Amino acid sequence: MSSAIPTPAQRTAWLQRAAALDRPLRAQVFAPTALVQPVEDASAWQGWRMQRCGDPGELPGLRLASGEAVHLDLGEHRVGQIELELASAGKPPDSPLRLRLRLSELPGEAAEADQPYTGVLSHAWYQDEVVTIDELPCTLRFPRRLAGRWLSLVVVAAGVGWDAVVRAVRFHAVTSATHQLPPPPTGLTPPQAEIDRVCLRTLRDCMQTVFEDGPKRDRRLWTGDLRLQLLANGVSFKSTALAERSLCLLAAFTRASDGAFPACCFERPEPHAAADIIADYCLALPAILRELLRQGGDRELVRGLAPLARHQIALALAWLGDDGVVVPPAGWWTFIDWKEGLDRQAPLHGVLCWALDAWLGLASTLGLDAGDDAATLARLRTAGHTAFCRTQPPSWAAAAWLVLGGVVTGAEARRLLLAVLDDPASVRPGGPYLMHHAVHALYLVGERDRAMTLIEAYWGGMVERGADVFWEIYDPDEPRRSPYGDFRMNSACHAWSCTPSWFLRDPAAASRAS
Amino acid sequence: MSSAIPTPAQRTAWLQRAAALDRPLRAQVFAPTALVQPVEDASAWQGWRMQRCGDPGELPGLRLASGEAVHLDLGEHRVGQIELELASAGKPPDSPLRLRLRLSELPGEAAEADQPYTGVLSHAWYQDEVVTIDELPCTLRFPRRLAGRWLSLVVVAAGVGWDAVVRAVRFHAVTSATHQLPPPPTGLTPPQAEIDRVCLRTLRDCMQTVFEDGPKRDRRLWTGDLRLQLLANGVSFKSTALAERSLCLLAAFTRASDGAFPACCFERPEPHAAADIIADYCLALPAILRELLRQGGDRELVRGLAPLARHQIALALAWLGDDGVVVPPAGWWTFIDWKEGLDRQAPLHGVLCWALDAWLGLASTLGLDAGDDAATLARLRTAGHTAFCRTQPPSWAAAAWLVLGGVVTGAEARRLLLAVLDDPASVRPGGPYLMHHAVHALYLVGERDRAMTLIEAYWGGMVERGADVFWEIYDPDEPRRSPYGDFRMNSACHAWSCTPSWFLRDPAAASRAS
Repeated sequence: MSSAIPTPAQRTAWLQRAAALDRPLRAQVFAPTALVQPVEDASAWQGWRMQRCGDPGELPGLRLASGEAVHLDLGEHRVGQIELELASAGKPPDSPLRLRLRLSELPGEAAEADQPYTGVLSHAWYQDEVVTIDELPCTLRFPRRLAGRWLSLVVVAAGVGWDAVVRAVRFHAVTSATHQLPPPPTGLTPPQAEIDRVCLRTLRDCMQTVFEDGPKRDRRLWTGDLRLQLLANGVSFKSTALAERSLCLLAAFTRASDGAFPACCFERPEPHAAADIIADYCLALPAILRELLRQGGDRELVRGLAPLARHQIALALAWLGDDGVVVPPAGWWTFIDWKEGLDRQAPLHGVLCWALDAWLGLASTLGLDAGDDAATLARLRTAGHTAFCRTQPPSWAAAAWLVLGGVVTGAEARRLLLAVLDDPASVRPGGPYLMHHAVHALYLVGERDRAMTLIEAYWGGMVERGADVFWEIYDPDEPRRSPYGDFRMNSACHAWSCTPSWFLRDPAAASRAS
Repeated sequence: MSSAIPTPAQRTAWLQRAAALDRPLRAQVFAPTALVQPVEDASAWQGWRMQRCGDPGELPGLRLASGEAVHLDLGEHRVGQIELELASAGKPPDSPLRLRLRLSELPGEAAEADQPYTGVLSHAWYQDEVVTIDELPCTLRFPRRLAGRWLSLVVVAAGVGWDAVVRAVRFHAVTSATHQLPPPPTGLTPPQAEIDRVCLRTLRDCMQTVFEDGPKRDRRLWTGDLRLQLLANGVSFKSTALAERSLCLLAAFTRASDGAFPACCFERPEPHAAADIIADYCLALPAILRELLRQGGDRELVRGLAPLARHQIALALAWLGDDGVVVPPAGWWTFIDWKEGLDRQAPLHGVLCWALDAWLGLASTLGLDAGDDAATLARLRTAGHTAFCRTQPPSWAAAAWLVLGGVVTGAEARRLLLAVLDDPASVRPGGPYLMHHAVHALYLVGERDRAMTLIEAYWGGMVERGADVFWEIYDPDEPRRSPYGDFRMNSACHAWSCTPSWFLRDPAAASRAS
């Protein structure tokens, strides 16, 4: 087993390959499209909406006294740097100017910026900065890369007898995709076309020098997000280079002790390992490689990674209990969904079967010897069926993954999946990551219309609630839900929510499990 | 009269001259000398003292969790930029690091940084900044130029499972003087030598690309400070270039409507006018020119400015009342001292006489025709004597300036000055600027010992209270006094407090009024 753990030389080679694939981002400058004002509105998402209150033509020369603010609409969600041209009006400035800059993804984030923080993640994630400017007039390009749509400028302190003046606001947006989104394919209804646009905007803003999970938070390469981004990438921006770079970075930080594929890694200042390992993310590697190959990715690179993919399955096979089904490993994080108390055993068993199936497909494409893996998969499916499919699975997670893993198939799969989805007592998805798999499972059982209804209800529901990028967390009944203890910490532009474009643009692909 | 108002061509020439005199600053890097902690102490200045709590050797590797802080002693007051080398300990950082940086001139400023602000000036003056750092480890050179001795680093937010680590702290100090202070002259007592050192440290830190009033606040060239700095400069750093540059900048912004010499001007981003005109600062110009010439300043430059100096006197002569004494002009600011309710008539009359005397000396040195200015001065002195010296003047301000202006002379001057200084009912100085003139007046009347006693009591009092630079505001009975409504807004390193070095190093010069 240990022979699949990458050697230092392999890691170095992957890092070198990643560095060689690090292309300059595309930069484009955008101006605000409107002056806006957050308005409290119980019917709006999270209780706030932005109301247009002025044309961008009113911005040059706008005078702001101490304590005054202006909120600007960038037109759509963007990632990049804020640049301001500032001056003063009144007496010559006798002191520095202190200015608060805030870029918000959602109106509630902008409106409730001053509320106490209640979350568990570092509130350094807040895109809320105070700068002191010694000289006016000046052009200030704020150095941090920020992500969002709503730009707030608050004059914390001007001086005695003078106010701040905003002469110009520019946003230097960056992406490794294209700023202009690919047009929707023909044949979509207007709501579907809008869902597609929002998906690709989300993907665009997450495509930086790696596939990031969210450009506001965590700004990081995660294996689970990468897999879903890759699907949407294949039907839109088609950047195999970015996928290869992301994959090489992750592979370089495979855990040395046991060869577990990392759940994420850090790019900067130098690529380095994160501590996180997620059981179901490890098992995503075979499907990632298979998809990359399908998109024209480098065959030798994929071949070099194939043993590592098989190794993830080997690790998981060690978790089987006496009944031949997986026991979620102690000391590992099994993600599946943001849902407290979810029973993750059946879903993880489905994931393992799905991974083995992807591996068999990959091995076949590459002409690799898969040994008796097909027999192993058959045994796993049988054991899983015995353990989990004799009665109705308790959750969408279990049903979707048992279908995706081929543990239940054909008419039985369709019946079981629909029964779970129709049962109000079933544990529903906590977020878009699992919702994607539920939709995918519907495609697999031939329920395309039902799948589309689910996409239009869930992702279309976000659009109805004002989303111009798709959210990390979305529960229509609980607008302020956050796994982090504070809704402002949620990422509004989140990679794992971008997959409806895949279903809309390549429904045939969605009829394959991997 | 209007012929003395500078033409556009003259202004341009002065600005060009100022630009040509803009020399690179001297930079030197310093490391903190101690870890300290603010300790509340009713007997300490403003209620706080810094207590040493660690060696600088403890700094590299110091770990700070969210909410933790470290306070560092830079060893002495410095002006420049903070550079930090930061890293993390624990899990790899999963979020940005938010750090608060504060540079304080005095312990109370550091200790009470979180108290509500009660002042009238912009609190953007606070040297208290929050930065968000996306990548660790990093080297952060904070871009603002700051001034102070006590550096506080507060971790506002690290992340989940990791802390910030301080690897190194460097302070890039700048001055156009020399970082090393000239040694005290021989013959001083240890307290006098210490006062001299603190004076020159103050002057050094105010000598940047102009003579600044205070490097924390206002960071600006003021005519009144310039005059006093020039005196101390002549016995220490001897930078005529900086004096000439400062003078040219001010002259270029002479008020166009009436030729009033500006109280201050701004250097950056391009030199520009301030709105302030101060009657007694206008009248400082003759003495500034005379002193500059004495220090070897450019004779042609001074000659070119001489008509402007005479013009300030012409402006003031228009303020005379029927009794031949000045009436402080309505719509002008007459400063004299930071002291509310001070009767400024007698002091301003003294200032005018002193200015005329300086002008006569200047004209004589330059071989200029002074017309009947000597007769005018004689008339002014007589009128002033009649109006203000028949009874005991009510304030130190009046007594000092009547002596400096030669309105009262000889034994009468000595008697009158001492009577005012000894009378507890006299209005005492509000700050060092006027205290300087009281000391100077004592020298003029031959009371050198009394002058030295006053220096040792007042400036020595600041030293006893922990000053390593001399303060803008010092009233031993009212430690939290501030003309700006908040003691933290006071400038602790203030040019107008640096003159004891002049008295200590060149007592003969102090026996001349200008």
